[in-house]
Amino acid sequence: MSSFGTLFKVTTYGESHCKSVGCIVEGVPPGLALTEEDIQPQLTRRRPGQSKLSTPRNEKDRVMIQSGTEFGKTLGSPIGMLVLNQDQRPHDYGEMDVFPRPSHADLTYIQKYGLKSSSGGGRASARETIGRVAAGAIAEHILKKINNVEIVAFVSQIGNVAMNRDCNDPTFLKILNTATKDSIDATGPIRCPDENVKDEMVKVIEKHRDSNDSIGGVVTCVIRNCPIGLGEPCFDKLEALLAHAMLSVPATKGFEIGSGFEGVKVPGSKHNDPFTYDENLKRLRTTTNNSGGIQGGISNGENIYFSVAFKSAATISQEQPTSTYDGKDGVLAAKGRHDPSVTPRAVPIVEAMAALVIMDQVLIQNSRTSTIDMLKKH
Amino acid sequence: MSSFGTLFKVTTYGESHCKSVGCIVEGVPPGLALTEEDIQPQLTRRRPGQSKLSTPRNEKDRVMIQSGTEFGKTLGSPIGMLVLNQDQRPHDYGEMDVFPRPSHADLTYIQKYGLKSSSGGGRASARETIGRVAAGAIAEHILKKINNVEIVAFVSQIGNVAMNRDCNDPTFLKILNTATKDSIDATGPIRCPDENVKDEMVKVIEKHRDSNDSIGGVVTCVIRNCPIGLGEPCFDKLEALLAHAMLSVPATKGFEIGSGFEGVKVPGSKHNDPFTYDENLKRLRTTTNNSGGIQGGISNGENIYFSVAFKSAATISQEQPTSTYDGKDGVLAAKGRHDPSVTPRAVPIVEAMAALVIMDQVLIQNSRTSTIDMLKKH
Amino acid sequence: MSSFGTLFKVTTYGESHCKSVGCIVEGVPPGLALTEEDIQPQLTRRRPGQSKLSTPRNEKDRVMIQSGTEFGKTLGSPIGMLVLNQDQRPHDYGEMDVFPRPSHADLTYIQKYGLKSSSGGGRASARETIGRVAAGAIAEHILKKINNVEIVAFVSQIGNVAMNRDCNDPTFLKILNTATKDSIDATGPIRCPDENVKDEMVKVIEKHRDSNDSIGGVVTCVIRNCPIGLGEPCFDKLEALLAHAMLSVPATKGFEIGSGFEGVKVPGSKHNDPFTYDENLKRLRTTTNNSGGIQGGISNGENIYFSVAFKSAATISQEQPTSTYDGKDGVLAAKGRHDPSVTPRAVPIVEAMAALVIMDQVLIQNSRTSTIDMLKKH
Amino acid sequence: MSSFGTLFKVTTYGESHCKSVGCIVEGVPPGLALTEEDIQPQLTRRRPGQSKLSTPRNEKDRVMIQSGTEFGKTLGSPIGMLVLNQDQRPHDYGEMDVFPRPSHADLTYIQKYGLKSSSGGGRASARETIGRVAAGAIAEHILKKINNVEIVAFVSQIGNVAMNRDCNDPTFLKILNTATKDSIDATGPIRCPDENVKDEMVKVIEKHRDSNDSIGGVVTCVIRNCPIGLGEPCFDKLEALLAHAMLSVPATKGFEIGSGFEGVKVPGSKHNDPFTYDENLKRLRTTTNNSGGIQGGISNGENIYFSVAFKSAATISQEQPTSTYDGKDGVLAAKGRHDPSVTPRAVPIVEAMAALVIMDQVLIQNSRTSTIDMLKKH
Repeated sequence: MSSFGTLFKVTTYGESHCKSVGCIVEGVPPGLALTEEDIQPQLTRRRPGQSKLSTPRNEKDRVMIQSGTEFGKTLGSPIGMLVLNQDQRPHDYGEMDVFPRPSHADLTYIQKYGLKSSSGGGRASARETIGRVAAGAIAEHILKKINNVEIVAFVSQIGNVAMNRDCNDPTFLKILNTATKDSIDATGPIRCPDENVKDEMVKVIEKHRDSNDSIGGVVTCVIRNCPIGLGEPCFDKLEALLAHAMLSVPATKGFEIGSGFEGVKVPGSKHNDPFTYDENLKRLRTTTNNSGGIQGGISNGENIYFSVAFKSAATISQEQPTSTYDGKDGVLAAKGRHDPSVTPRAVPIVEAMAALVIMDQVLIQNSRTSTIDMLKKH
Repeated sequence: MSSFGTLFKVTTYGESHCKSVGCIVEGVPPGLALTEEDIQPQLTRRRPGQSKLSTPRNEKDRVMIQSGTEFGKTLGSPIGMLVLNQDQRPHDYGEMDVFPRPSHADLTYIQKYGLKSSSGGGRASARETIGRVAAGAIAEHILKKINNVEIVAFVSQIGNVAMNRDCNDPTFLKILNTATKDSIDATGPIRCPDENVKDEMVKVIEKHRDSNDSIGGVVTCVIRNCPIGLGEPCFDKLEALLAHAMLSVPATKGFEIGSGFEGVKVPGSKHNDPFTYDENLKRLRTTTNNSGGIQGGISNGENIYFSVAFKSAATISQEQPTSTYDGKDGVLAAKGRHDPSVTPRAVPIVEAMAALVIMDQVLIQNSRTSTIDMLKKH
Repeated sequence: MSSFGTLFKVTTYGESHCKSVGCIVEGVPPGLALTEEDIQPQLTRRRPGQSKLSTPRNEKDRVMIQSGTEFGKTLGSPIGMLVLNQDQRPHDYGEMDVFPRPSHADLTYIQKYGLKSSSGGGRASARETIGRVAAGAIAEHILKKINNVEIVAFVSQIGNVAMNRDCNDPTFLKILNTATKDSIDATGPIRCPDENVKDEMVKVIEKHRDSNDSIGGVVTCVIRNCPIGLGEPCFDKLEALLAHAMLSVPATKGFEIGSGFEGVKVPGSKHNDPFTYDENLKRLRTTTNNSGGIQGGISNGENIYFSVAFKSAATISQEQPTSTYDGKDGVLAAKGRHDPSVTPRAVPIVEAMAALVIMDQVLIQNSRTSTIDMLKKH
Repeated sequence: MSSFGTLFKVTTYGESHCKSVGCIVEGVPPGLALTEEDIQPQLTRRRPGQSKLSTPRNEKDRVMIQSGTEFGKTLGSPIGMLVLNQDQRPHDYGEMDVFPRPSHADLTYIQKYGLKSSSGGGRASARETIGRVAAGAIAEHILKKINNVEIVAFVSQIGNVAMNRDCNDPTFLKILNTATKDSIDATGPIRCPDENVKDEMVKVIEKHRDSNDSIGGVVTCVIRNCPIGLGEPCFDKLEALLAHAMLSVPATKGFEIGSGFEGVKVPGSKHNDPFTYDENLKRLRTTTNNSGGIQGGISNGENIYFSVAFKSAATISQEQPTSTYDGKDGVLAAKGRHDPSVTPRAVPIVEAMAALVIMDQVLIQNSRTSTIDMLKKH
């Protein structure tokens, strides 16, 4: 379905070639200062056409709040939001009407729904993520206020150029501890905070752009100051919800939390995160963070960090031998310019999805703790 | 919460030290032949204590159907199932009452719920997975009948000994195409079908067992004959649901579908799966399968394959410097023998979770296609 | 929350004084002919200001489809719809800023959300029902196509003037069997098909209008040609879902299905609906229909009929002794003209909510029957 | 489906002729004192065979907690509970194998599921309500502790003998304000607290019992000390959730809140509940309560009261002309003794369903208020 979340819930609508895309956000607490200015920046960061590294289609993407606020404050009712579709160009995909684009959703869409849409893959489109980013921006806005939660994503790999993502590596650890949205954006359109690899990453993208090809990458995200105790211990472990959220983003192929796939090589005696008492916080903390801030499915107050694999973009201008819809061999070359790497642009989408997960779990855990408090009083 | 699924839904209860663990399964179609004999084998495969490679606690784990069947056929009503807890030994965890076990759920459980349970991490326990495996066995049973769906998981990595998981590798491709539960079990407790690496994997586990340590691994799973058109294009992409399912299994750290994290290194021109017409099936297929059987969030009829990273088991008999609950430095050594690698035992759990996802999506897509058919008739 | 339904789901947003009200409808099958012309008529029927019997505020209420259709056909993706708020007049409620309106949602809104909104009761407003009616119109449109389902509501009582609602009464039975939306609207703004009582009903409303008072009523609704087998036998009995739907409409105080509250007086020997074989339909039917078309929570193919009680409108121009927000006794008289009876205007809202329930259950039951069919084939 | 609730959620399983019936309850706060002794009394009150007024089948119905508690305290994990089916007597329904019982679920069950079960209507059975009552008892237990919530149901009508249910009637008002479960049970098996009508009610039941017939009735329920602010203003108005809950109970035909169906006859000027300032509570209250404790879908702190219509039991020993499954006219007479009125026995079921609704809404509203508090602190 088109909803995500239980108490903090977003429902999105819209595809590439309709009047608008948008969403309804439920669960926003009343009395919160909120205007379009709190939401637009993340939409602007998501927008394509911002640099030579991404597609030149300049979509304006101005968000318009429809409901749920009054005099700049939330009412507690659902926030309706929409962004008009301006740059529709429905005829630009001409040749694709003959060819299903390889590794795109054109064919599976028809197999599922029994018909072809002019957007090809319908809702499985980058444009659908606008509603998510708008909703995620509200979630981040609230999380910032209630617990100074910081959610920062960045590019950690392009092609085979990767930063070390071991949390015991000092460079990576420092990035996890200090990177901000501003510092990430200050690194340029590549959005990579590791000086040792970022220039090389740019070169890899440029090389693939110049050969009308595309290349994949990895986005890593850190959540700082996440409230302790979030996540449900069984099916809705916090990492499971994050994995769900991330793999629902178009073009993703993998998710790992904490030590991830590399961590399986580390014996328990080294992988386990020992406890120590923190005098300032007056509570136990872990001395290492291979767990990635989640243990037994529940946040433990350490930095939550995870990585998301994005495949190379499916749409390339290079000629590809493939088949037409009606089964004839042929060669497809997508017209126009296309994103050589969607990875840097995915940064605000990853942040948005992370924020949606955390905000929903805050509401659920708040329900539990406040009910425990009521029981204790009586 | 403790439910998973929308139309095919399992709700589980139970932890390590209570009377029973069990589940309620909703959405089982009526008129299906089903007895405990269809469910028990997967529970038996999940059971610890089956080999020198896993923990010697011999839990019997006999499933008892409580409701929803009559004369060996399903009624269409919920299937209640339970397994008695026999080997509870609540006092065996003595020293752990002083120490929160590192990288276990003991501390986060207290942080979340405000109290300590004798099972430590409560529901975040391997024992909770019994209900999932029982429910998953029913799902597999149905999927087999309606579309000859085959779900087979196996160990593809232990520590740093890994099989090549590139679907363009002939050995891996052959395994994806031909492995069966029986052939996997025939490889021994290691459950690895790759002759080139399995013996080395066993050695890695034995080495860690002998040093009272543990080691992680990767389970890969293939779903063959999955109906085309499953998955919802936005938040509930099929890979997102699988990722959610897999990361909800205890001790998991990562998930990847198709080409996964390695795939980000491959340019679009090579990563894209070209289409070709299949004369036998009378439909388009892809000539490669980097997509892993899912495109735009929707199954395309190719083999779905994915991998799940399992960390090294947190409970080891080796001494670990850590802190007590009340903040005093100390050294913890878990008594008794512990699983040096949970990875091989996770095989049926991964299969069960995969089956639950696919079955639920079959019901949802069946609703759509049958409604489309009704529209066409009128 | 602001969603209703499982597979056919509507999520609404908007209150009286924001930019627009609208909804997202999920679960609409692809390939269906659908334009705004299929939706607008029910919105127009819902609109206030159509007669001397209702409030003169003339809201235009033009629905605009945002997404989910292309070239007049549905895509299978969510249908976003909105209606602009034109006649906001936020200052008309001046005195109500001092007084919480009795039996309105002004005070409970503040108690729940901790703040006052200029609409008083926020989402508990008649205007919110626009999204429901738009979604319900789509549901009715589909139901008509797939099974010739007819959903017709009408006024059966105003104040103490009531038609006989016993299904064994020939007049009532004839109305249940033959009334159409057109025939109901042809009776005038009172929307009552019983010639014996309709004129008296009009007089009752006029009497209360002339004394600046209001009066309640009952809307009865019949669903003809409802598919057999809808409803889930436990918590989601069909009548339970209808009751939920109806009591969620503003100003409702009661719901009854079939024989309803009067039926409790009838002994089982007379209340039971005997079976008889119908040669034309080649199946059993009941000879009477005290059950109201639902038995054991499941539709049986007979007419489903139910009634909904609407209280007298809370907003009246007459002076009412009450208290101000800050606890001072005073007298409130709402300015302007107000609906003396909301009951006739509720007719399309009742129909919409009924359609949403039935459509959702069709999708759920279709999932079951098509899966049973798959099992039988193998 | 077989679940009810969002955060406080019960999932039930079981029908008349299986090993056990039971449920899983999610959302129970940790640290709560809870044993089977807190649950059994309501199950015992629900049990048939307690008096000459109800069926003599003496089912033992001992609840056994399976999980979620330790040393008499809840863990925060799901509470699994079951009751063994002892008195199954599957062969007692012999003749009913030929006849679908009129106004029972036998036929619709087959129409929905495509097969016959030995229980006839499967889950649409009184026995299924055991899981609900067990779950509801836990909810009531919590509500009592956190806000001294009192939920008391009683019989207010049998056949055409009814107490005055107008909240402005002194006798009815006194009952709403003072009745307790104990005082209700002290009135005998009729469970009617109105001395003026209870003896006559008993006679009505006896008369129908003696003629092998059955008769319906009305159960009224009051919820005192309900927290203010419960219910969501749109689809999940508190009265809508209560209506859903009540109409999901077998044999119900109607629901009304506050003034209900009679209230439609009262003009707004009399029906509106004026506000007045309460010096003790330091807040506004209403001087009358036609609203039934809910305004705009949200609880306002006044007594919530509602009534539920129960039809005459469908199973009677009297001969009924009807048709066999295969369409032959015949006469059915159910063997054995049957409940002449299910109404008094429904009292604890109504209480249980009310408690489930209120508890779930407490958790949801607690989430909101505690999040508002977090926002205010920062």
